[in-house]
Amino acid sequence: MTKINRELAIVLVSGGMDSCVTAAIAHQYYDLAFLHVSYGQRTQQRELKAFDDIADYYSVEKRLTASITYLKEIGGSSLTDGRIAVSESSPDEINPAQGIPTSYVPFRNTHLLSIAVSWAEISGAGKIFIGAVEEDSSGYPDCREEYYQAFNNLVEMGTKPETKIQIITPLIHMKKSEIVLKGIDLKAPLHLTWSCYKNANKACGVCDSCLLRLRGFREAGVDDPIEYTRYNS
Amino acid sequence: MTKINRELAIVLVSGGMDSCVTAAIAHQYYDLAFLHVSYGQRTQQRELKAFDDIADYYSVEKRLTASITYLKEIGGSSLTDGRIAVSESSPDEINPAQGIPTSYVPFRNTHLLSIAVSWAEISGAGKIFIGAVEEDSSGYPDCREEYYQAFNNLVEMGTKPETKIQIITPLIHMKKSEIVLKGIDLKAPLHLTWSCYKNANKACGVCDSCLLRLRGFREAGVDDPIEYTRYNS
Repeated sequence: MTKINRELAIVLVSGGMDSCVTAAIAHQYYDLAFLHVSYGQRTQQRELKAFDDIADYYSVEKRLTASITYLKEIGGSSLTDGRIAVSESSPDEINPAQGIPTSYVPFRNTHLLSIAVSWAEISGAGKIFIGAVEEDSSGYPDCREEYYQAFNNLVEMGTKPETKIQIITPLIHMKKSEIVLKGIDLKAPLHLTWSCYKNANKACGVCDSCLLRLRGFREAGVDDPIEYTRYNS
Repeated sequence: MTKINRELAIVLVSGGMDSCVTAAIAHQYYDLAFLHVSYGQRTQQRELKAFDDIADYYSVEKRLTASITYLKEIGGSSLTDGRIAVSESSPDEINPAQGIPTSYVPFRNTHLLSIAVSWAEISGAGKIFIGAVEEDSSGYPDCREEYYQAFNNLVEMGTKPETKIQIITPLIHMKKSEIVLKGIDLKAPLHLTWSCYKNANKACGVCDSCLLRLRGFREAGVDDPIEYTRYNS
């Protein structure tokens, strides 16, 4: 595939399946720069390995890993605060993410996107891709399409007049199973991804994130290529 | 002054005159929490001293200092990038901040406000005060009132439904001289503040920030209580 004169796009890559498929989508049309943000989450090191593995897969040279550990100091989320238990659900539950889960980090995506916008303004990237999913993440206020519309409006107001930066959320209305199929269709390296909120070796298979992922593969009729500790399909 | 049952407000305190006067305004009606953000700016340590001095003056116990040094890594501003010279102007220039100055940090205020919002959501603060000034900082896209309207809209979209957090910009339409007079009226500790972009001992008196401050005092007909290296009024 020729890459000459393609526009630069920043992709927010947590290392999970959604961000991997988002990168695969962006890769079709743009040169890529990858951004990972550590905010004191428990599985930080494992996420970073997945980030690098996916970046290597797509030969992405421009990589930025930013640390916003003050979110850990602020606390309030099970992802960053060791005193709050990670929600566990059983695989039979249809909707593990009812209400706002304990893993909610207040206003988190605004921090992530702000870093991407600052980097975009300096590097000349015109697009920022983020793998937010409205339906499966209905508990998170900052995963809804109207939030991204509000953020795009803020970018327009808060950057130089000549700057044109747009946030793109290609997965926002997709179901997890559709994301799985899209990833397979685009040959996204799903085997390199990491979604678990809890462990750092094998995925736990019981946290909200593992459950959503497993349900997505099950509904897609496809085997998840990663290993789990407590789940056997 | 009684402080019983007053609502909590977070004040973004850089340590400069504007944030000090903003704190003085908020102090009239709210219990205060102070937030300082270090983003690799040259005068970081001096700012932190001013932050603590002003917090001590108002007996503020809730203090958070957050570090977002990734902005330094992203670069592009003279405030964080040692390779870009800080703009110097002469005191006779009427409008030192023409165009977007080299000290512009792309999308900076969004980072600062996002931290404040996350902290507010956890701590239960309903108001966030920031000393942005539209006229004197006309070169910064994120110092204009419409930017703050867009940000308030984003907060509404990106936080829990029951969360009500509002950004307040009491200085947004004030001139620097009016800010000086307001500070004196409210007995704000202007002698403890630090505005200079360049030095860390005596203020330089020639950077954009010093010039705006000095002009404000001059127009207010009041002596600036801090010392300068190169300016003698």
